Amino acid sequence: MNIKRYMIKDTSENILSKLDPSERGDFHSKEEAAAKMEKLKERLAELQDILFAQKKHSLLVILQGMDSSGKDGTVKHIFSGINPQGFIVTSFKKPSLEEEAHDFLWRVHMKTPPKGYIAAFNRSHYEDVLVPRVHGSLKKDDMKRRFRYIRQFEEMLVEEGTTVIKLFLHISKEKQLEKIQERLQDPTKHWKFDASDLQEREYWDDYQKAYEDVFRETGTEQAPWYWIPANHRWYRNYLALSIVVKTLEGLDLSYPKLNSPTPDISELISPRH
Amino acid sequence: MNIKRYMIKDTSENILSKLDPSERGDFHSKEEAAAKMEKLKERLAELQDILFAQKKHSLLVILQGMDSSGKDGTVKHIFSGINPQGFIVTSFKKPSLEEEAHDFLWRVHMKTPPKGYIAAFNRSHYEDVLVPRVHGSLKKDDMKRRFRYIRQFEEMLVEEGTTVIKLFLHISKEKQLEKIQERLQDPTKHWKFDASDLQEREYWDDYQKAYEDVFRETGTEQAPWYWIPANHRWYRNYLALSIVVKTLEGLDLSYPKLNSPTPDISELISPRH
Repeated sequence: MNIKRYMIKDTSENILSKLDPSERGDFHSKEEAAAKMEKLKERLAELQDILFAQKKHSLLVILQGMDSSGKDGTVKHIFSGINPQGFIVTSFKKPSLEEEAHDFLWRVHMKTPPKGYIAAFNRSHYEDVLVPRVHGSLKKDDMKRRFRYIRQFEEMLVEEGTTVIKLFLHISKEKQLEKIQERLQDPTKHWKFDASDLQEREYWDDYQKAYEDVFRETGTEQAPWYWIPANHRWYRNYLALSIVVKTLEGLDLSYPKLNSPTPDISELISPRH
Repeated sequence: MNIKRYMIKDTSENILSKLDPSERGDFHSKEEAAAKMEKLKERLAELQDILFAQKKHSLLVILQGMDSSGKDGTVKHIFSGINPQGFIVTSFKKPSLEEEAHDFLWRVHMKTPPKGYIAAFNRSHYEDVLVPRVHGSLKKDDMKRRFRYIRQFEEMLVEEGTTVIKLFLHISKEKQLEKIQERLQDPTKHWKFDASDLQEREYWDDYQKAYEDVFRETGTEQAPWYWIPANHRWYRNYLALSIVVKTLEGLDLSYPKLNSPTPDISELISPRH
């Protein structure tokens, strides 16, 4: 799996319209991916164990995407096998009054992973540039400033030991409608339905443009954006998990050694009586 | 009171040795300042009330200085008259394990003031450049990076509505010894004595140099450093309070107006029976 193929490097206008949300790599079916998925999950658990023991690095996975693009599902599927003790997931909703009274990075900084941990952000500080861009609630200069803060903030995190990857879950407008219908028809999914999703759907094209701005302004070598074709849930999960695993494999992870010479414990285990 | 005189602009080497810690402005005695001090306290309470009502600005006061320079006393004296509801003070001690597992700005960002509030930092992120500079525990490049993070972080705070002032409490080496002796002799001050203060005292000159680096690297127009002659407690308090008041007066503080036309409440207060 060459994940680099999904790194967003071309940030020209309308780039998203050229990326196929129904792509499914070299797979012909979901079943074909299932076995590989299990292996990847095991590998993730192994890597996380070393990450946690070594306490040298941390990993931040930022999930963004249109409503119904599958952010919750991705978190659920790719991180279900890992040790919850070393994992923090935060869903960022509409800011509270307290959060709004601070700079927009305040609540986000608080939830960044300490060394040894993996953190997932389900939505993030990117909402604070996407929404104003679409609804025109910030002046151009203020937008620019926010982009600069984000670059500097993420650069600081990276330089201080946090690996940052940003996943854009890319679905088609048709697929979104399909999923909204599912939410309306399936009683186990009613709770996910939010009428405001339908309102925001009317701004579909503006959001696509806003995301293109985001990629252009904040896609750095140190904290890259990946696009994840997300029309097929299974491929979305497979690819997102692959990117997480490959990224962890790129770190110099190893179990820490004993500080002192190995003590002789034979005395402790020999019979005393 | 022209506070600009105490803004540190000249950051050449050994600048601290040219600033007199026993200075006491135009005053001849403590008593002369006492009446003015009371007026300033009242003014601070007025200004804080508007700041809190308006919820547009916030103020961050960072206190730094050698051990025994009077950081606790300054906080106590200058902020004792204000509404505690709109005030947050944080004393930053040696970082906990959890704090150490994050970037050094993590715990500091969390305690920044929301709009409408005044926050005081008793020590701060500056300890994370001072101590490594003195004890040589960070490489030059790492030091440089930390200074850059601090500049960017404070710039962001300022641009997002927080006024930042940084007060360096300047005492002489002799005065420090005197205060340490006080702590040893006065039973009500024993609790303030810490043997490690005596150890750090041996690095006096290195700390002075480290502070000069700090002024050079982080003294910006937006987030300036002031030096406070601190050998005389009363002048220290008077000057620090003056700077806080003058800074608040420089903001466009005003009580917010009613959003809607004033309702006619005569009906509510007229007798019903």
